[in-house]
Amino acid sequence: MKNNQLMIRGDYLLKLNRKSPIPLRRQVEAYITNQIATGEWAIGSQLPSQRVLAERLRVNRSTVTAAFDELTAQGLIAGNRGGGTQVINNTWGLMAKQKPADWGAYVEAGQFKPNLPMIRTINQAEFIPDIIRLGTGELSPDLIPSNDLAKLFLNVSTHGMSLGYSEPKGNLRLREEVSKFLKPKGVAADPESVLIVSGALQALQLISIGLLDRGSTIVLEKPSYLYSVHVFQSSGMRFYGLPMDSEGLMVDCLSQINKERGKTIVYSISTFHNPTGKVMTSARRKSILNVCERMRLPIIEDDVYRDLWIDAPPPPSLKSMDHSGNVLYIGSLSKVLSPGLRIGWIVGERSVINRLADIKMQNDYGSSALSQWAAEECMRSGMYEAHASYVRDQLRIRRDYMLDLLSVYFSDLAKWSSPSGGFYVWLKLIPDIDPNTLFECALANGILLNPGVVYDRAASHYLRLSYAYASINEMDQAIPALRKLIVNLAEEKV
Amino acid sequence: MKNNQLMIRGDYLLKLNRKSPIPLRRQVEAYITNQIATGEWAIGSQLPSQRVLAERLRVNRSTVTAAFDELTAQGLIAGNRGGGTQVINNTWGLMAKQKPADWGAYVEAGQFKPNLPMIRTINQAEFIPDIIRLGTGELSPDLIPSNDLAKLFLNVSTHGMSLGYSEPKGNLRLREEVSKFLKPKGVAADPESVLIVSGALQALQLISIGLLDRGSTIVLEKPSYLYSVHVFQSSGMRFYGLPMDSEGLMVDCLSQINKERGKTIVYSISTFHNPTGKVMTSARRKSILNVCERMRLPIIEDDVYRDLWIDAPPPPSLKSMDHSGNVLYIGSLSKVLSPGLRIGWIVGERSVINRLADIKMQNDYGSSALSQWAAEECMRSGMYEAHASYVRDQLRIRRDYMLDLLSVYFSDLAKWSSPSGGFYVWLKLIPDIDPNTLFECALANGILLNPGVVYDRAASHYLRLSYAYASINEMDQAIPALRKLIVNLAEEKV
Ligand SMILES: Cc1ncc(COP(=O)(O)O)c(C=O)c1O
Ligand SMILES: Cc1ncc(COP(=O)(O)O)c(C=O)c1O
Repeated sequence: MKNNQLMIRGDYLLKLNRKSPIPLRRQVEAYITNQIATGEWAIGSQLPSQRVLAERLRVNRSTVTAAFDELTAQGLIAGNRGGGTQVINNTWGLMAKQKPADWGAYVEAGQFKPNLPMIRTINQAEFIPDIIRLGTGELSPDLIPSNDLAKLFLNVSTHGMSLGYSEPKGNLRLREEVSKFLKPKGVAADPESVLIVSGALQALQLISIGLLDRGSTIVLEKPSYLYSVHVFQSSGMRFYGLPMDSEGLMVDCLSQINKERGKTIVYSISTFHNPTGKVMTSARRKSILNVCERMRLPIIEDDVYRDLWIDAPPPPSLKSMDHSGNVLYIGSLSKVLSPGLRIGWIVGERSVINRLADIKMQNDYGSSALSQWAAEECMRSGMYEAHASYVRDQLRIRRDYMLDLLSVYFSDLAKWSSPSGGFYVWLKLIPDIDPNTLFECALANGILLNPGVVYDRAASHYLRLSYAYASINEMDQAIPALRKLIVNLAEEKV
Repeated sequence: MKNNQLMIRGDYLLKLNRKSPIPLRRQVEAYITNQIATGEWAIGSQLPSQRVLAERLRVNRSTVTAAFDELTAQGLIAGNRGGGTQVINNTWGLMAKQKPADWGAYVEAGQFKPNLPMIRTINQAEFIPDIIRLGTGELSPDLIPSNDLAKLFLNVSTHGMSLGYSEPKGNLRLREEVSKFLKPKGVAADPESVLIVSGALQALQLISIGLLDRGSTIVLEKPSYLYSVHVFQSSGMRFYGLPMDSEGLMVDCLSQINKERGKTIVYSISTFHNPTGKVMTSARRKSILNVCERMRLPIIEDDVYRDLWIDAPPPPSLKSMDHSGNVLYIGSLSKVLSPGLRIGWIVGERSVINRLADIKMQNDYGSSALSQWAAEECMRSGMYEAHASYVRDQLRIRRDYMLDLLSVYFSDLAKWSSPSGGFYVWLKLIPDIDPNTLFECALANGILLNPGVVYDRAASHYLRLSYAYASINEMDQAIPALRKLIVNLAEEKV
């Protein structure tokens, strides 16, 4: 059943059913028709060559040729000059007997790079019913206070809520709350230096199009969450990954960077790093700030996990020690309260915030007023603080449970360290297993993984596990199952 | 009072007070210091030359020189090689006695163009208390059903609401509602062909980065709303504006376009056009569809005003007559229900929607779950339809009132036609008045205008008036005041 469900979800997961009474040739035809009908292969786009397709589907080339011939006869595909084959129509276009616009050319154009296929698969697989999401960087639904959030709206009449277009920097009352929220954390931010955004990801997107030219360089930890999204690369920027040691981003490497004026910026997840779980030490924070100040190198500090400490509060943020305006600071409600609110903020030098606010207005006219209002109420009412404390307790239980399971099932198969907060265990597998194979096999077994390669192409031995999403029950199921899978795959190889 | 408030809001609106006991030199100093302190002029940015500044402020050059000398002594600015003057520090930087990062270089970089100064001023001036907004393209706050929207959340427990990250295309139940909503309008859109976005503006932004390469051409009506936002130009695209006649976009001009494959797209506000209020006739729609089909030229149809007809329902959309998948269709809840929800949609060919959904995920991980939930409830419960009908009634009253005022106060000063729906009267002024001067004088008198130049650089004789935002009382005040202003300015010129 599950396999069947996955088959239709495209290229990546196709497996032909060799025991089926339907001839392979027809299965290949159905596969291609489906790719076209669902729009995975757009009109105007190039099909994989017959050779490649035959290899990928593990069938004879003649099977693929037969399927191509049939679809050519149906008018769906056609050979082109270069000897390749192109989608020239879709089933719907055939029905209408009219030439649709040449969307394929558009779908392939555009400046924004598509997500990695693995990430697209992850994005979609997250919505397969009953899948166990062992790597998801998100609170489990039962840790999101949906009812409490809905209840906020009960006393709306007393507060009033403006549902018009918002001010360029976002609702002033929310910015005031953010300012108050950051004060005890040592970050002095007047409301004019705060920009409300639709989550930390949008903060990064605005920075990428608003502050950096094509050809700029982002210096970052390697691995990093940032490798899994394309916001910067899609705007034509390069990554320059630096190694981490136990204290965090290695400062010596940083000071050796060749900085170009206005074209280099540092990005750091300084606290409960995604995906390694590491926390940068106070000493390291100070040296990095010093180096960056000397080099006049701006820093983006992505601090979305700060409030999720389990053992002890983390050292103060880089921003709190920044007296020169060097640091652009990013926060979000996603990891503590609800990603569905889509509320985050950027704090920084006034001129920078003004520029980013202008671009935000040009992109989407500001964030949802409902969400901004709910965020303000959560912060003002103390609900945020109370919930953060609850989530910390729950994360402790979940982390400990996962670590216990790992020491039972993985001590001979992997290495890891215990995270002191955040969501993640960065698991280094000992056997040599192709991450794509592992990912696919796990998925076929109902387990969705986040392989390390998503965060660093070289991290093929790693998995990012998350104790935030899957339930204790699901962990009980999935960790032993994963062990089995890995042992099998390792044996297959030998 | 009001003048004072505006003075500090920067460059654009500065007027020195010649009757003040504070010497002009000090006022110029204060002005520059303020520009730097608020971040309007960032560290690293170039000051206007002394000559330009003297002209702009209408003072002697020696006054500006004295101010520059003082600020140089304070360490805020410094001459540079080219003979120009640069901001080298801000007041806060001076206090901290440390060199801040060179943000100026970053603020001036970035691929996204800043908004036009006039639009930035409009965006900010909208939040000046008591200003009369005579051109705002937004429902008056009393036409937004804020309380009803808040009440939706009362019965949330029965429906459940998911506040996690959303599916790539947006909440399925909302997409189903959109699909049902569009059906009686003749648009067949299954939920997989619908992408939920944070307002129609975001739809345009996603199309600009997702479907079009730098150097592409957007063919559009001239004037157009699209000239007032930079989404396409910021991604390196050109506009090719075509004239309109009484039936809409002129089809002959369209068929003469030199189309480049995958690099040309048509954008049309076919119904209750912003800013002219025009409705494309059925016949014109058909010919445009035919021409575009023949040329295989895709169309973006921006249809956000469709439900706001006053006299009679408009002809069916281009999308409803499109049998070839040529049209990408954009809708939004902003103009009928609430812009603060930030909910809109794009409907189109599956491959195109898939691509745009992927980019949306990379930009902001989807729209606010609260807003999506509220939108779904509004549509499902019939509240949307009921409210649309109420808004239509109110708009009729407001439109008729404004037209009456115009015929009393402007029949000798301007020409216009009566819009049959939407928000706008496109007023052509007879006297020859500089639009910047008119804009500034009106603002100084507490009236915020949307000059025609914002929608077409050549439309310097036009104003976009809106009967949707200002109250009847405010119209009563502002229309005669505007007449007076225009008469005065016209006389001054003679
Ligand atoms: C380090 C980091 N930054 C940003 C984000 C995006 O968060 P948001 O939901 O606020 O956009 C994530 C979420 O995975 C993250 O791990
Ligand atoms: C023609 C047109 N398209 C799009 C928009 C943006 O609307 P939304 O609030 O849905 O982003 C507007 C609003 O002014 C508009 O007039």
